[in-house]
Amino acid sequence: MLLRVEKCGICGTDKHTFRGETTQYGGTKAETVTPFPIIPGHELVGVIAEAGKDANETMNTGGETLKVGDRVVICPDLFCGKCYYCRNYAGFIWCDNMRSYGNSLSSKEPPHLFGGWAEYVYLVPGTYVSRVPDNMKPDVAVLAELMAVTYNLDKAKEFYSMSGDGFKSGDTIVVQGSGPVGLCHIIKSRMLGAGDIIAIDKSDLRLAKARSFGADFSINLKTTTSQQRIQQVLELTEGRGADLVIECAGAAQAVPEGIDMLRKGGMYIETGIFADVGPVSINPHRHLCAKNIRLIGQTNHPPTAYRPSLKLMEKYKSFFPPFEQLVTHQYKVEEAEQALEKSMHEEESLKVVISP
Amino acid sequence: MLLRVEKCGICGTDKHTFRGETTQYGGTKAETVTPFPIIPGHELVGVIAEAGKDANETMNTGGETLKVGDRVVICPDLFCGKCYYCRNYAGFIWCDNMRSYGNSLSSKEPPHLFGGWAEYVYLVPGTYVSRVPDNMKPDVAVLAELMAVTYNLDKAKEFYSMSGDGFKSGDTIVVQGSGPVGLCHIIKSRMLGAGDIIAIDKSDLRLAKARSFGADFSINLKTTTSQQRIQQVLELTEGRGADLVIECAGAAQAVPEGIDMLRKGGMYIETGIFADVGPVSINPHRHLCAKNIRLIGQTNHPPTAYRPSLKLMEKYKSFFPPFEQLVTHQYKVEEAEQALEKSMHEEESLKVVISP
Amino acid sequence: MLLRVEKCGICGTDKHTFRGETTQYGGTKAETVTPFPIIPGHELVGVIAEAGKDANETMNTGGETLKVGDRVVICPDLFCGKCYYCRNYAGFIWCDNMRSYGNSLSSKEPPHLFGGWAEYVYLVPGTYVSRVPDNMKPDVAVLAELMAVTYNLDKAKEFYSMSGDGFKSGDTIVVQGSGPVGLCHIIKSRMLGAGDIIAIDKSDLRLAKARSFGADFSINLKTTTSQQRIQQVLELTEGRGADLVIECAGAAQAVPEGIDMLRKGGMYIETGIFADVGPVSINPHRHLCAKNIRLIGQTNHPPTAYRPSLKLMEKYKSFFPPFEQLVTHQYKVEEAEQALEKSMHEEESLKVVISP
Amino acid sequence: MLLRVEKCGICGTDKHTFRGETTQYGGTKAETVTPFPIIPGHELVGVIAEAGKDANETMNTGGETLKVGDRVVICPDLFCGKCYYCRNYAGFIWCDNMRSYGNSLSSKEPPHLFGGWAEYVYLVPGTYVSRVPDNMKPDVAVLAELMAVTYNLDKAKEFYSMSGDGFKSGDTIVVQGSGPVGLCHIIKSRMLGAGDIIAIDKSDLRLAKARSFGADFSINLKTTTSQQRIQQVLELTEGRGADLVIECAGAAQAVPEGIDMLRKGGMYIETGIFADVGPVSINPHRHLCAKNIRLIGQTNHPPTAYRPSLKLMEKYKSFFPPFEQLVTHQYKVEEAEQALEKSMHEEESLKVVISP
Repeated sequence: MLLRVEKCGICGTDKHTFRGETTQYGGTKAETVTPFPIIPGHELVGVIAEAGKDANETMNTGGETLKVGDRVVICPDLFCGKCYYCRNYAGFIWCDNMRSYGNSLSSKEPPHLFGGWAEYVYLVPGTYVSRVPDNMKPDVAVLAELMAVTYNLDKAKEFYSMSGDGFKSGDTIVVQGSGPVGLCHIIKSRMLGAGDIIAIDKSDLRLAKARSFGADFSINLKTTTSQQRIQQVLELTEGRGADLVIECAGAAQAVPEGIDMLRKGGMYIETGIFADVGPVSINPHRHLCAKNIRLIGQTNHPPTAYRPSLKLMEKYKSFFPPFEQLVTHQYKVEEAEQALEKSMHEEESLKVVISP
Repeated sequence: MLLRVEKCGICGTDKHTFRGETTQYGGTKAETVTPFPIIPGHELVGVIAEAGKDANETMNTGGETLKVGDRVVICPDLFCGKCYYCRNYAGFIWCDNMRSYGNSLSSKEPPHLFGGWAEYVYLVPGTYVSRVPDNMKPDVAVLAELMAVTYNLDKAKEFYSMSGDGFKSGDTIVVQGSGPVGLCHIIKSRMLGAGDIIAIDKSDLRLAKARSFGADFSINLKTTTSQQRIQQVLELTEGRGADLVIECAGAAQAVPEGIDMLRKGGMYIETGIFADVGPVSINPHRHLCAKNIRLIGQTNHPPTAYRPSLKLMEKYKSFFPPFEQLVTHQYKVEEAEQALEKSMHEEESLKVVISP
Repeated sequence: MLLRVEKCGICGTDKHTFRGETTQYGGTKAETVTPFPIIPGHELVGVIAEAGKDANETMNTGGETLKVGDRVVICPDLFCGKCYYCRNYAGFIWCDNMRSYGNSLSSKEPPHLFGGWAEYVYLVPGTYVSRVPDNMKPDVAVLAELMAVTYNLDKAKEFYSMSGDGFKSGDTIVVQGSGPVGLCHIIKSRMLGAGDIIAIDKSDLRLAKARSFGADFSINLKTTTSQQRIQQVLELTEGRGADLVIECAGAAQAVPEGIDMLRKGGMYIETGIFADVGPVSINPHRHLCAKNIRLIGQTNHPPTAYRPSLKLMEKYKSFFPPFEQLVTHQYKVEEAEQALEKSMHEEESLKVVISP
Repeated sequence: MLLRVEKCGICGTDKHTFRGETTQYGGTKAETVTPFPIIPGHELVGVIAEAGKDANETMNTGGETLKVGDRVVICPDLFCGKCYYCRNYAGFIWCDNMRSYGNSLSSKEPPHLFGGWAEYVYLVPGTYVSRVPDNMKPDVAVLAELMAVTYNLDKAKEFYSMSGDGFKSGDTIVVQGSGPVGLCHIIKSRMLGAGDIIAIDKSDLRLAKARSFGADFSINLKTTTSQQRIQQVLELTEGRGADLVIECAGAAQAVPEGIDMLRKGGMYIETGIFADVGPVSINPHRHLCAKNIRLIGQTNHPPTAYRPSLKLMEKYKSFFPPFEQLVTHQYKVEEAEQALEKSMHEEESLKVVISP
């Protein structure tokens, strides 16, 4: 299947690659080292330009029949289907041999076109492809992967129990970091029955966006100390702490700070530290045992998260400002370097998108 | 209700108190400072000596009717029933005003008898009292609180999902520390459908007990490095790591070591570090995010865990050596200091029990 | 504590009582026979008129401190705290000795004032009382109990798993019956991340309300056969059936029809048949086993559901028409008979409310 | 891959086929009509006789590497991997196009050998194959599919919550029907922490086996009325009813009887009525709503249930009589008709096994 790319976002992973930070862990061992040359870009939306006659058999289409001309998004991860994880745990997200468009599918292999910052992408058999709802703009559909990442909150709902675990209706949620990933967690929290949502970031621009997309309170990192931020969360929760804190900032120090913001038995979701940013000191008694913490680390989302993400963006659009406002800058593919630079000026940009 | 004590165990908390380590955290703030004078001892079994006529109304009896002469165990924790935690989360284990027999119920208050290393204990209204099954010896019933602590594994079953979370039938489980708490987790793992169980400790005595009570493999801390232990677990799991690791050793360094023993998406239960033993260095990328960890901290167990614990010890006794073998030493109450000394020689003792 | 009643809704139970249908089952045996004389009414909002000095100790307040003048709602159920269910299952909703304001608390007992269709209600110790958020009108707060009933959907989220159980983000939900209970399930479904919502009723008025409060599709019972309704649901779900069907219609025949609307592995929530309306024929192979159904019966909601319900009605008000539109008719207490008659003309009314 | 069959059990499905009952429902529509000619038999254990060089790639092996001479069991179900269910729900058990060895894989298609009552079975790519632990006899391994069916109890553990849902440690479990499926549920209940287990059957032979494999109590259908059986369960549970009732009898009337045996909020698992045995009358108020039932219908088990099943049979063998005692009769393949006749004399046989 050949896809004519319409838009492709710049993800944090792309920035790591750009800076040469090309090692990622999975389980205990280093697993991913970028196999240059690659064509970067995996948060992509495009139109089916050509489809082999068995494409609906060989692609993972979510059950629908696809045809040339359909607008689709893809899950960038390809799973081997053969390793212990693929064969014993439903969902595939821990595949030992995962390969991803824009990251670990190398352009050395024919037909070479495995990244989204390009005019066309070749989709290999087994790729998960989801049709975009009619009338959804490419600038919204390009956010599908980000919304799929918020599967974290579906997991938090799965772990919910009346006895105080996980994500309960009306819960207070802190999102550390209000970049695109943080904002999508704010949006999804609001879609799933959150009470108060508290956004933290160092950028006033981002915090303003956070408030317009559902955050009730915002805390600026630049004007507060760690202790003050913890104190503010305690004050907003009658002294108890938040029910759920989600780390989308990518900073090691956010972890003990975020745990200190939790109520007893609260849930911490560590989803933002995708590359090795060094260690941090944790007190196992205070932070883990006495806190009665429920902590979930999550580097990935299931391929089945795309259909629901598209559905929710369609169904809930009237509850939020236009989702395309998360895209603050657009560049042509030949301006990719500028685009990357802009995306690293995090205080003045949110999602930066590239088109061919 | 007045209880004639038959047996009362020495718990880790008692040893902390004996050494003057009397501060415990709950949530974020230090919450418990021992209100001396106290009568220590809370893992107790006794016979009802006297009961007020409303005792069955005022005690939490699990639904059964109690009478003088019945053998019972108690949940040592008293819950206020009025704080945010008591009133909003079913189960009460995070009560902000918890008071406990043998620890935070002071002998300053009449009628003074609030600890188990004594001839009689006075039970205040609201105490959770469970009748011991007929024919169960006091030396087994005295283990009821320890077995209730293994509620951790029921929580791990609650978090089970086909997609790889929590405790699945046939899972490989590592228990760090084979003292009484560790041994009870080994026993409960076997009761709930574990596959291979791996015990770790520095004492050959304890590891031998671990094997006789259900562990398939044992690793001695004294003859191995951290790296070797991690390697052994990986080898026993085809290179993947264990599905579940439970920290019952009380050492901060056990935490990163235990996480390194986990498979991707594995579950870590931190239940052994009851007092502040200092910080440890954690790498949020490797240990939390990339590991896709599910981590549960747990300082407590619900009062409703006693009935099932007694039931299981009764039902599964033919599958194990006599449970009273977990009790290695018995002392009279006047020998309490000797008993405490013995219990701190952890390599040669397991549960040390005091009788009046 | 004495409450000056502001508003009190008419519930289905009140209509059963009015018609003399005063027997309800709980578990296997008939348990509730109305102990006349009673003052009906339990969906009430009022202002604290007097409070004993221990009221904050003896009432279940959700953790906050209440004072005279506060607007509050109550959970109408009183739990014994002593039976097997109260003492072994957290949450209390299956209490063997439950007594309820307006239903099973008899006016024979002093101080007699145990129902909401009155100027004042006396709240006995142990009543769950929740403060209404500032600025929430009584006409909205009076819906708190209805929203608490939709705890059903929180349970469906608790049962969610990636392998297809329970309520997933983006799921298609059918609500059978668009009376007040059905409408609140529609609203809560939208608050918790539903995809398409399909409302069924015989009243055009109710179906119009259903659409304005979040239903995407509506089916009128009067103009369709059972087979046609099933067919419509299948067509709206690409032939598969809905993920979740919630019975809020109170009709036995809705059960097999609703099950036939489900996809394989779908969830059916039976919450509308509060009185014995006779049997219905079910095919265990087709409806249960081959359907791979997950079915939940629910007559009650936990007392802890009130705080989150008030929070959600506050937080999500901008996403919906004013919630007070669910109240279509208001009467004075001396017009209670007229009010009941109106509430039984279900095609032209929704919630009917009584004020003193 | 070619398998030399060692043993193959007779399953209930085989008996249905033998009697001409060849229609099965899945979801709402009739889905399976046996495509004669077939070679029956799907509960099979065999030795790998030949393996294509890509066999480890094309078979679903659970992660291990298989070679000629390995003893293996198979999951008889083949999933299309392309339908809505396969692509959206992890686990595959609701595949719209499922085909099964011995049932819906027709001998019309080459290479024709798709059933276990034969010398050799040809395994098509995609078949789930699990290696049998060393030293496990074929007479035990042949039970692997039956044990995989008890995945029902893992699901019941997944649905467990402290507030009273699902399968809790120490719970009372009733198993309706003590044929091979019922016995395996008794065994698995004991492996997973059940309290009292109550077996029901019409055969004294089967009830004796049930007791020797873990049932604490047994009730004979022939000497009791339905009302008496319900009464006995209530008496064994202090008047409350069982926590979990599992229908393994295949009789429609067992459903309302079993529900009447449940406590409030208890769980009913309907897994025994695989063919249309007609309807039964259910009272939605009493049986579903007022009972607060959690009901799970289950026709299938995930292919990932085989490895854990083999692991548990290996690990727990010392806790039970030899598992091969579940096999009461063995026949050669040329005596298949006799074998089927014997298997239908349910009072005097349990699992009947065929070897080539």
